Amino acid sequence: MQLQVLLVAGTHGNEINGIWLFEEWEKSFFLINTHGIKTCKVIGNPQAKNAGKRYLHSDLNRSFREESFVSFEASNFEEIRANELVKLYGISGENPCQIALDFHTTTASMGSCLVVYGRRGADLALAALIQHKLGLPIYLHESDKKQTGFLVESWPCGLVVEIGPVGQGLLNSKIISQTKLILENLLEQIQQVKHLNLSFPEKLIIHRHIKSIDFPRDEAGHIDGYVHSLRQSKDWQPLKKNDELFYKLNGETIKFEEDENYIPVFINEAAYMEKNIAMSLTKRELWDFQQAWEQSLIDLIN
Amino acid sequence: MQLQVLLVAGTHGNEINGIWLFEEWEKSFFLINTHGIKTCKVIGNPQAKNAGKRYLHSDLNRSFREESFVSFEASNFEEIRANELVKLYGISGENPCQIALDFHTTTASMGSCLVVYGRRGADLALAALIQHKLGLPIYLHESDKKQTGFLVESWPCGLVVEIGPVGQGLLNSKIISQTKLILENLLEQIQQVKHLNLSFPEKLIIHRHIKSIDFPRDEAGHIDGYVHSLRQSKDWQPLKKNDELFYKLNGETIKFEEDENYIPVFINEAAYMEKNIAMSLTKRELWDFQQAWEQSLIDLIN
Repeated sequence: MQLQVLLVAGTHGNEINGIWLFEEWEKSFFLINTHGIKTCKVIGNPQAKNAGKRYLHSDLNRSFREESFVSFEASNFEEIRANELVKLYGISGENPCQIALDFHTTTASMGSCLVVYGRRGADLALAALIQHKLGLPIYLHESDKKQTGFLVESWPCGLVVEIGPVGQGLLNSKIISQTKLILENLLEQIQQVKHLNLSFPEKLIIHRHIKSIDFPRDEAGHIDGYVHSLRQSKDWQPLKKNDELFYKLNGETIKFEEDENYIPVFINEAAYMEKNIAMSLTKRELWDFQQAWEQSLIDLIN
Repeated sequence: MQLQVLLVAGTHGNEINGIWLFEEWEKSFFLINTHGIKTCKVIGNPQAKNAGKRYLHSDLNRSFREESFVSFEASNFEEIRANELVKLYGISGENPCQIALDFHTTTASMGSCLVVYGRRGADLALAALIQHKLGLPIYLHESDKKQTGFLVESWPCGLVVEIGPVGQGLLNSKIISQTKLILENLLEQIQQVKHLNLSFPEKLIIHRHIKSIDFPRDEAGHIDGYVHSLRQSKDWQPLKKNDELFYKLNGETIKFEEDENYIPVFINEAAYMEKNIAMSLTKRELWDFQQAWEQSLIDLIN
């Protein structure tokens, strides 16, 4: 089967920088250097984009569930769209793609980073190549039963690229250039693997998801405190006991009380408020690169 | 008639910092120092807030039109809401307010500033007091036939407070503190005028609206360039001939070509894309404070 990479922007309709880049690319074929890799590019949720919203009925990037492909009776718009995308571009789909790259933006000060879901070898190998080349941090999202059904999990290999900070619905020059740079580097690395021109690192730095924490809330469940000014925009910077976490308008500062140190990510991502997530806490770990990951990626690509 | 000040947050449903401050205030009566001024606080567009959007049918802050109060046959949600707010809190309304203060946020790097619409004496007097006290810039919006129907124009005196940058739908500690600070200072200054304890400045600095400029667009009208990185976040900083304005992905930089110098404001405000406004251009002017403005404000308040 010929190698084909699925490129997705606008899985969330109000994350418009990737959408805009794809639309410009549609007009000017040579805008993106694909390094000879065959790609299918798609706007994940065009209806949500037209509505200027993250989604219509539910978060598309939580709607990819295996069971729904078995008995398909969805009435939820995003569940239908998730099924459709897999039917069109899934590994057994009409236009099969082995790898999915899903371009997102965040209101958090995450810079550019990669998100991998679980510990699939091919994902980790591809992420390691990009970390080796560009130095991007990798956030390993796992063991979170409340957040599941991510798009890339429905492909044999897939990464999310997250770039921020940028407001929802806002074009930003820096975010657009970063998206373009990472997209081209991902395709370049895939091409290198295809040609067995391999330069995997020996180690990779992983930020392993431990848990997420909610905003402070009053008895009615209403958010009654916000991210402390000393914590705002401090993604990737260590959080330790007695550090300021939240602030309430009554003057109360809520501090971090655990003995354990963490690295927080997605601090104050606007879209996570409804998911009861003020930030997620990770552990920074140095992992040995596994030969098996490399083989997984090579097997998939060749 | 007793002095009463209308305080509005959430005229745009996705500008949530003011809404959140008002909701917290509702729970804790003493949160805001009102300096003894009687206030009515209201969420401008609660339905849009619940939908997480700026508006449902059309921009509420462009829906206040005198004619619609004469023959009222609106089916547009925001036109109905505009009528309702005037009926409830207008100077001839059920619960009459003389002054309206409308709290907004912007994705542009405007810092904190005041917007006045046209050259009403009482508006300019109140804005001058705040500029004198806090140093805030004043943006005078006038002579713009495409942008009309602002909320505060339906009250005898009214100012918009704009604070940014902050993404839509995002709580931010700095924005909340700035909103609280300016709200309290406005009420304090109104109280000073009420007690005829007057300290008007001799001069005020006005940024007078000249025109707005659109994004570059392709033949189909689609935006095909974004704000140049050297222009992004440079609100209030002079724009002169040959300065970088926009950038296209084909590498083309669009420069500012007029001989005239301007001060740009609302650079890359996300909500203005649909209004074909990439930024607005103003002239910075030093105006003499007019005795008549002071008298207007005193007459209204006392």
